Amino acid sequence: MNYQDVLNNIYAELSSKDLGGSVASYIPELQKVDSDGFGMYVSNIAGEDAFVGEYDHRFSIQSISKVLSLAMAFSIEGEQLWHRVGVEPSGNPFNSIVQLEYERGIPRNPFVNAGAIVVADVLVSHLNDPKIDYLDFVRKLSGNDHIVYNGDVASSEKDAGYLNAAVAHLLKSFDNLTNDVDEVLDFYFHLCSIEMSCKELSQTFLPFTENGIVFEYNGYQLTQSQVKRINALMLSCGFYDESGEFAFEVGLPGKSGVGGGIVAVHPQRYSIAVWSPRLNAKGNSAKGLKALEMFTTETGYSIF
Amino acid sequence: MNYQDVLNNIYAELSSKDLGGSVASYIPELQKVDSDGFGMYVSNIAGEDAFVGEYDHRFSIQSISKVLSLAMAFSIEGEQLWHRVGVEPSGNPFNSIVQLEYERGIPRNPFVNAGAIVVADVLVSHLNDPKIDYLDFVRKLSGNDHIVYNGDVASSEKDAGYLNAAVAHLLKSFDNLTNDVDEVLDFYFHLCSIEMSCKELSQTFLPFTENGIVFEYNGYQLTQSQVKRINALMLSCGFYDESGEFAFEVGLPGKSGVGGGIVAVHPQRYSIAVWSPRLNAKGNSAKGLKALEMFTTETGYSIF
Amino acid sequence: MNYQDVLNNIYAELSSKDLGGSVASYIPELQKVDSDGFGMYVSNIAGEDAFVGEYDHRFSIQSISKVLSLAMAFSIEGEQLWHRVGVEPSGNPFNSIVQLEYERGIPRNPFVNAGAIVVADVLVSHLNDPKIDYLDFVRKLSGNDHIVYNGDVASSEKDAGYLNAAVAHLLKSFDNLTNDVDEVLDFYFHLCSIEMSCKELSQTFLPFTENGIVFEYNGYQLTQSQVKRINALMLSCGFYDESGEFAFEVGLPGKSGVGGGIVAVHPQRYSIAVWSPRLNAKGNSAKGLKALEMFTTETGYSIF
Amino acid sequence: MNYQDVLNNIYAELSSKDLGGSVASYIPELQKVDSDGFGMYVSNIAGEDAFVGEYDHRFSIQSISKVLSLAMAFSIEGEQLWHRVGVEPSGNPFNSIVQLEYERGIPRNPFVNAGAIVVADVLVSHLNDPKIDYLDFVRKLSGNDHIVYNGDVASSEKDAGYLNAAVAHLLKSFDNLTNDVDEVLDFYFHLCSIEMSCKELSQTFLPFTENGIVFEYNGYQLTQSQVKRINALMLSCGFYDESGEFAFEVGLPGKSGVGGGIVAVHPQRYSIAVWSPRLNAKGNSAKGLKALEMFTTETGYSIF
Repeated sequence: MNYQDVLNNIYAELSSKDLGGSVASYIPELQKVDSDGFGMYVSNIAGEDAFVGEYDHRFSIQSISKVLSLAMAFSIEGEQLWHRVGVEPSGNPFNSIVQLEYERGIPRNPFVNAGAIVVADVLVSHLNDPKIDYLDFVRKLSGNDHIVYNGDVASSEKDAGYLNAAVAHLLKSFDNLTNDVDEVLDFYFHLCSIEMSCKELSQTFLPFTENGIVFEYNGYQLTQSQVKRINALMLSCGFYDESGEFAFEVGLPGKSGVGGGIVAVHPQRYSIAVWSPRLNAKGNSAKGLKALEMFTTETGYSIF
Repeated sequence: MNYQDVLNNIYAELSSKDLGGSVASYIPELQKVDSDGFGMYVSNIAGEDAFVGEYDHRFSIQSISKVLSLAMAFSIEGEQLWHRVGVEPSGNPFNSIVQLEYERGIPRNPFVNAGAIVVADVLVSHLNDPKIDYLDFVRKLSGNDHIVYNGDVASSEKDAGYLNAAVAHLLKSFDNLTNDVDEVLDFYFHLCSIEMSCKELSQTFLPFTENGIVFEYNGYQLTQSQVKRINALMLSCGFYDESGEFAFEVGLPGKSGVGGGIVAVHPQRYSIAVWSPRLNAKGNSAKGLKALEMFTTETGYSIF
Repeated sequence: MNYQDVLNNIYAELSSKDLGGSVASYIPELQKVDSDGFGMYVSNIAGEDAFVGEYDHRFSIQSISKVLSLAMAFSIEGEQLWHRVGVEPSGNPFNSIVQLEYERGIPRNPFVNAGAIVVADVLVSHLNDPKIDYLDFVRKLSGNDHIVYNGDVASSEKDAGYLNAAVAHLLKSFDNLTNDVDEVLDFYFHLCSIEMSCKELSQTFLPFTENGIVFEYNGYQLTQSQVKRINALMLSCGFYDESGEFAFEVGLPGKSGVGGGIVAVHPQRYSIAVWSPRLNAKGNSAKGLKALEMFTTETGYSIF
Repeated sequence: MNYQDVLNNIYAELSSKDLGGSVASYIPELQKVDSDGFGMYVSNIAGEDAFVGEYDHRFSIQSISKVLSLAMAFSIEGEQLWHRVGVEPSGNPFNSIVQLEYERGIPRNPFVNAGAIVVADVLVSHLNDPKIDYLDFVRKLSGNDHIVYNGDVASSEKDAGYLNAAVAHLLKSFDNLTNDVDEVLDFYFHLCSIEMSCKELSQTFLPFTENGIVFEYNGYQLTQSQVKRINALMLSCGFYDESGEFAFEVGLPGKSGVGGGIVAVHPQRYSIAVWSPRLNAKGNSAKGLKALEMFTTETGYSIF
């Protein structure tokens, strides 16, 4: 069965089904979304792309951006990045401050908020104009010059962001934040505010399918080996305290965001993005998880 | 044996003894102190005061100030204060952020940093000019118009205060901080920067001996019953994760500060202050603890 | 107002009042009790005793026995006992296994289950026939030869005691249990099964009022200083994670049991026992706590 | 480069290299091993096997057996198994009792000790003679009738097994252990005592390469889909709090044991076993980890 047929089946079964969950509500911008929206897009490295539903509708990619900022920082710093952030699953929600204190300021991995703030700090140290340069990197990676920040989302995040501010100050107290707290947070909130459609998101993650093309930006290479390691991290840590469940049910490296998006990749085969804004109790798209589980089951293509 | 004889004995035995420990070093102002300084002062409600050593030397009272800010806030808010802060010992160091997350933003007690920051927030809400009004309250309580803040200490605390900033932002994220984070922290760092001598400190705590005088300030009363409760809190929580040890060895309600001061009270009898800047691993004055243990053993006057 | 008048007032106000809570139900024997039972007894060292309600009805003293086993072990081992158990409040429920693992097998204090099991182990090491000798000690302390174990309670505890068995094995894994796990647990479950009335309980705790008599048993003394320390421990740790609240509201050293009993002492004045089997969420008698709070408020006699 | 060449290179580089670590010492049987032993074996589904060093030397497979007991229980119970044990990485050492209490008796995954004890309990419920039937299952899976328990190891584990006994009693207190604690532990210690060589171990894991053969035992099937899920679990949770690191550095589903063995599988390609008894601080074979990292780097065959 080809990818388009599989997507059609999934859409037929899930598009009007109520799988529960509710839209993220901690900032008004995320709450305004159409809660029944649903789209999918598969970028196939060996053939035609496949897509269904609102695959062209843009949404806030939120934490999915943490993979891209990690990719940029990893390409610049190389292995020394791992002195400041770990590679282990956390077993805790994405915003836990507890673990950070126990582990003396070294975040468990780059996808918990603390880790992504450290990665943002690394980029602030290296980039001339972090917001402009990062957006440029993402545009080059996706081959799409129309990708933008949503400034309203970024400033709402900032107004509601006391927990992230607590995390950043705690990192600073452990000497694991080099730059000014407010500057790093401003950049962090911006990078989470990027908007993409399923189509754009799946195209942005094509380099993570290890399709043979080494990505270069500004003289820094994102190597095949680095991409493999980022994929390993997505598999171990991409869904917070539901990462094991995603590996178990879906079996692909992936990353979710509270905007309702999920992206996943199958090395040498495809990248896939799904969007449905109702989140389950763990903060991951309820319908998105189900759709991906059906996709790997019906195609038989997981990494396991 | 009268109090003066007991103090003389303690001084003879301890003044030149090395009990280990080291001076607080996280800000330069605290580090500049004479590490071998040692003084004691007993304010006796039934007779003459007693004193030895550098009882007249001023030091930074630090966390001891948390008892005074609690007294002021309790006199203003009454029982409703306890909706925002608990009365249980924490079993953790004074600056733990872990417990605060587990308990959803309600600090265990008013003497851990998180609790004292909530108390500071309460005062900021009620006072016209918090720094001036609080100092005025402390001066009235002690009957001493010369008590002052040390502005250098306050601003050093601020520069080094990332952990307290993390705590304050976490409180804010749990809706348990009403005012602006920076304003509350500025006030909090000031109130910890008050300087007193042993003599001044023991006199300031005379009202906590429940010597029959109800203290009034600005129309608010600090009642006998409130003082009893503050004493109960000092006994349960005054020495962080060494509070049980202090109850066990000394047997008095008391409070310590990282400036090396300890104050304790025996209801209906006396208040006592000791100063010696070398701290043990728990952050309490090593020689101060020993001196107070000797005092209650030799006089036979603990509350148990 | 004399003690009898105060008790009469409390009884009038509370005896038929519903303060919520429910009877312990983890073993059938505890559940069989009359849930509305209520009695109080004050043993006055300076005058006549006072009592109301079912002061003569026997109930299972449960964890209150931990104070008596501690007294016996402390009199035999002296200070070296504290190498195996701490003196700090735990900030956790009585049966927490978490803290024990973090602290490498040294229980926080002798009143959490882990600490009481270590104390039981100490007694098993020293006594010829632990169950007979301990009962003899309690009888001598209370001057009452009719005090007995309830064998049905002890064996029910054993059948339901998987959590205590987990604690004991964990202590053993940290080398803080010398004797056979089953033997220690059998002794521990027996000592918790002792039954007393309020009258007997308050009389048993008369030595803790430090009424001038040093208690001796089998050549070992329970000294005045040891009693003071046990009182300090009851104040810091006698009510699990409600210990601060009890100090704050009642202001006496005391100990509760899940049978609905509470005993408290005011050094140099009185010991008091109350019984009412409905427990609050923390496992302490709801009506008993209220009754004691009224008693210290109306008499004005707390230690603070 | 073919597998044999890669193994030869690894052996040449690592066999006499000191990578630190030390042999497990909590029971004498494990300590008796030759600490410099080193062997590897690759079972290739598409061609000839490859091997180096002491690939034929038997060692105690220890926790690796947890994968096989899981496979047996999963084939019998199907999805309902996951009501009693989770699929998330723990972020903690293998023997943590803390997490189990926080999560109310549901172990994080089947590879922490608590989870493996629950799996053992499931098997005890279903099998006529658990020890005989389990060994028979392993023999059939490996196609090798000479695989045996080491009774001395099993009984030593039992004598030293207070922590596992604590875990089992805690599970029982949460009603997540159906059978008698001692019976389950006896079976658990036996299943960890199985001995295999690298050759035998890699052959035993051939079915996990999803080589097209569905394994049947006693009327129960171990399906392709179940094998995929077990592989996902090995990737997420196979190396305790070093699981992320293994995914990151090696990129294969795998499982380690404190006997110094590691097994890993590449679906559709190969299974590989390595043995070297010196363990790193996390309890995984130091040289074994390095050898596998070299293997996937040199062959280019990880799952990412």
